[in-house]
This record gives sequence, C-alpha cells and structure tokens, in this order.
Amino acid sequence: MSNTVRFGVSINDDLLCKFDNLIDQRSYANRSEAIRDLIRKELVKREWAKNEEVVGVITLLYDHHQRNLSGNLTRLQHHQHDLIISTTHIHLDGDNCLELLAVKGKGKEVEHLASHLIGTKGVKHGELTATSTGKKID
Amino acid sequence: MSNTVRFGVSINDDLLCKFDNLIDQRSYANRSEAIRDLIRKELVKREWAKNEEVVGVITLLYDHHQRNLSGNLTRLQHHQHDLIISTTHIHLDGDNCLELLAVKGKGKEVEHLASHLIGTKGVKHGELTATSTGKKID
Amino acid sequence: MSNTVRFGVSINDDLLCKFDNLIDQRSYANRSEAIRDLIRKELVKREWAKNEEVVGVITLLYDHHQRNLSGNLTRLQHHQHDLIISTTHIHLDGDNCLELLAVKGKGKEVEHLASHLIGTKGVKHGELTATSTGKKID
Amino acid sequence: MSNTVRFGVSINDDLLCKFDNLIDQRSYANRSEAIRDLIRKELVKREWAKNEEVVGVITLLYDHHQRNLSGNLTRLQHHQHDLIISTTHIHLDGDNCLELLAVKGKGKEVEHLASHLIGTKGVKHGELTATSTGKKID
Repeated sequence: MSNTVRFGVSINDDLLCKFDNLIDQRSYANRSEAIRDLIRKELVKREWAKNEEVVGVITLLYDHHQRNLSGNLTRLQHHQHDLIISTTHIHLDGDNCLELLAVKGKGKEVEHLASHLIGTKGVKHGELTATSTGKKID
Repeated sequence: MSNTVRFGVSINDDLLCKFDNLIDQRSYANRSEAIRDLIRKELVKREWAKNEEVVGVITLLYDHHQRNLSGNLTRLQHHQHDLIISTTHIHLDGDNCLELLAVKGKGKEVEHLASHLIGTKGVKHGELTATSTGKKID
Repeated sequence: MSNTVRFGVSINDDLLCKFDNLIDQRSYANRSEAIRDLIRKELVKREWAKNEEVVGVITLLYDHHQRNLSGNLTRLQHHQHDLIISTTHIHLDGDNCLELLAVKGKGKEVEHLASHLIGTKGVKHGELTATSTGKKID
Repeated sequence: MSNTVRFGVSINDDLLCKFDNLIDQRSYANRSEAIRDLIRKELVKREWAKNEEVVGVITLLYDHHQRNLSGNLTRLQHHQHDLIISTTHIHLDGDNCLELLAVKGKGKEVEHLASHLIGTKGVKHGELTATSTGKKID
C-alpha cells in the first residue's frame, strides 16, 4: 500500500511564476499534479529504455483499397496476438483508415511489432506511442 | 486522379547498402515503399506545424479509482465531441485504464484538447500522437 | 531581483522512491534541482513554440572534400551573421568535419537558417538543438 | 572506395509534388540530396540505439555566478577527457553562459557523461544532440 507524502521544492519566484502560467494553460488542478506528471513522463521513458514490460499504442494510417493490405495487417496482428490487447478501426473517409492498436509486452518486442506493421506495403504513416502499464508509476 | 511516377536517386553504394539493411529489418517490401514512408513522415510534421486539418491520437493512462476522474474525462470529451471520432477504453488491470481517442481537427485545437485531458487530475500519463487525414499524403 | 521561494509537492511514496533513483543516476544534487530542470525543459519548449528570442545550436556533419561546400556554408553563415554568435570547427578525421554554430534570434529565423545549412549539398547530417537565452528561466 | 549508384523510386505525383515543395523550402539542391538526408537521419538514430561509436554535442546553459559551478563542470570534463573533443564557451550576457561540448565515444558512455553534466547544480538547461562520426554514413 502506497502512502501520500510531501516534499518541498526551492525555486526562484520568477521561474515559479512562469511555471504557474504553464500549469494554468494546461489546466492542471495544482502544482503537485503538474510536477507528478513531469516525473512520470521521465519514468515512462526509462521503462522503455530498460526493456521493461510496457504498454504502447501503434497508430496506422492506410488506404484500404491497397491490395491485400487489410489481410496482411490482420495476419501480422494474429501472429503476435499475445502482444495486442485491442484494435480499433476508424473509417476516416472513403479511402483512408486509422487503426489504433493497444499493445503490451517487453519494450523491444513492441518496437519490433510496430516496425513490421508500419513497414507493411500501403501503410501511409505509422507511429509507436510509448506509455506504461501504470503499475510502477503510481 | 493521381498517377504513379518514378524518379531516380543517386547515392553512394555504402550508404545504399546500409539503407537496405534497415529496410530489411523494418520489413519494407522495397526501397520505394521505405522512401515514401520517410517522405510522408516529413509531410505529417508539416501539416501539424501549419495548423492544417489533422488526425491525432490522444493516449491517456489513469487509475479509475481516482475520484470523479471518469466523469471529468467524459465531460471534457463531450464538450469537444466535434473533435473526437472515437474513444477506446481498455482495462489494463484492476486499477489502470488506457483510453485511446481518435481525434480530427485543426492542429492547434487538437493540441489544446490534448493538454486539457492530459492535465486532468488523476491522469498518470498522456501523449498526443500526430498523424494525418491521409488526404494530402497519397 | 528574484527571490528563492518554496512550495510543497504531495506524491505517493512509491513514485517518489522511483524519482529518487532517477535523480541519483543523473547525479542531481537534490530533488529541487531535478524538479527545476524538468520545469525549465518545458519552458524552453514554450519559448520556441511562441517564437520568442531563443538560443540554439546548429550541428553540421560534412565531408570537407565535397566541392564548394566549405565556401557555401561560410557564405550562408555570413549572410546571416547577425544570428550567429560563434562557429566551432572540429576535424573528426581526414574526411569528416563537425561544425557547431551557436545561434541567437527569433525561433522561426533560427529554424530557417538551420534548414538552409542542413539542406546544403554535402552536409551529411544536421540537427537544430533548442535552448534558451537563460534570461527568462532563472 | 565507394561508388555512386542510382536507384528508382515510384511514387504518386501528388506526393512527389508535396515533397518538391518541402525540398524547395529547405533549400535542398535536388531530390537525391534530400532523400540521402532522410536516409542518414535514420542511420544516425540506429548507431545510437546500437551503442556504436558516435559523435554528439552536449549543450549546457548556466549562470556562471552559481558557486563552484565552473569548477565542477571543468572537473567533470577532465575526468572524462577521453570522450571530449572540444569545449566552446560563449558569454551570452552578464550572467548566462552557453557551453558546447563536442564528444565522441560509445553511445551509452556519451549519454552517461551528458546526464552528469546536465544534472550538475546550477545548469539551467542541457541537451544531448546525437550525430555520427560520419564514417559509416557516406
């Protein structure tokens, strides 16, 4: 069971004032919330760098008219079904599809799967977004 | 109607050899596919920089036990429902939720919405992933 | 004259423990120093996004045997001498040169200059690194 | 000895037209030059990911009035003098200094040195910029 604790930060008032403006613009409830977010952002980067178990999102943009593409993507995904939690498919217009895959696994495995999917013929644009299982960044 | 054309690239054989290795590892079908991907990546960055109509993915990681959080996120999303195409919710474990929002709109509007959602009290980690409507990067 | 003030951050002890590990690995003297660094990193991004006066570093890697390249780079730099504070040239080996330009100006102007230099025929690799005049992030 | 070779890229004319606009804005001499730059950018990322010998630039912004800072930075740099090729110091104004270190070594060693320097008390902002020895990306 984790407990809430408190620590103090000493800072120039000028710098704090600029930070408060930033917090305000980003709609943070308070400074603690904003600071915790900055800290967690660093920890997420580290989980990926250290090949720990992570969660990621693979974003794929493609034209569904491209021959065999849907089939190829589906086949690749089934081949690695243990890494893929869910797939959301969005019909952007008559041609373009957006596919969002929530994935979980070792950082390197997830990066490998993303490379394969993004490299598939007909995928116009793809990105791998790094986030966390949330277990270690409470 | 767009047509397929062809252009030549002159390059040192050493550099081409290294590129071929990279292509192979990322499972690209051929060089043209890999080159088109590099080009589209640059064009997507530009669409966002120029505040054109874009597509993005907002990734939110949060603990659903956090008081009022689900309600706050839902309220914020309804407030901007014209920007949000779909929301996928994944139960990562007993505590942690992953929420993926597919969004479409002007780059700045999408960034503003993402800031608000990521700044919401209780969201542990959030990212905005930039992609495209696909209309202008065939 | 700016004064040092203090504010408190409430945080789960698990998250604080992980942050302390990170601080230790990065050799920060204490938490305040690490937190101020995270804050200033966000403020530097903002200065660039808002086209304020910024400082940057343009890194250029090139082969000095490339015909006319040194001359072209020098000409381009003189043309924009008001943006360039200093240039450091390093002979990496018999062929490769590293050139580091310290630049100061509006964010957009600096980005424009960097694009031109990086796009010059024969420049193998180039990057623009964003930092600050330091005046507004005490 | 490396030789110049040529390969063809097939692409939609719409996409090529947009790429030509981009090339123009970034002042590339021709498409081959722009394509080679995109390729080398990917290869540089890979050299760092694979912990090969790389070249980097460490950018440090600090206030020289900060007690002991210059001494601490100098001591740290001497301790790792085998990684550091050169240091350029720029007096931005009465308070702020910009220091640019050209560094060469294994990717991880360079990252470690950069962390220490950026984490030093009094350094306001720091970045590590990744580039290459240039030997393997002709």
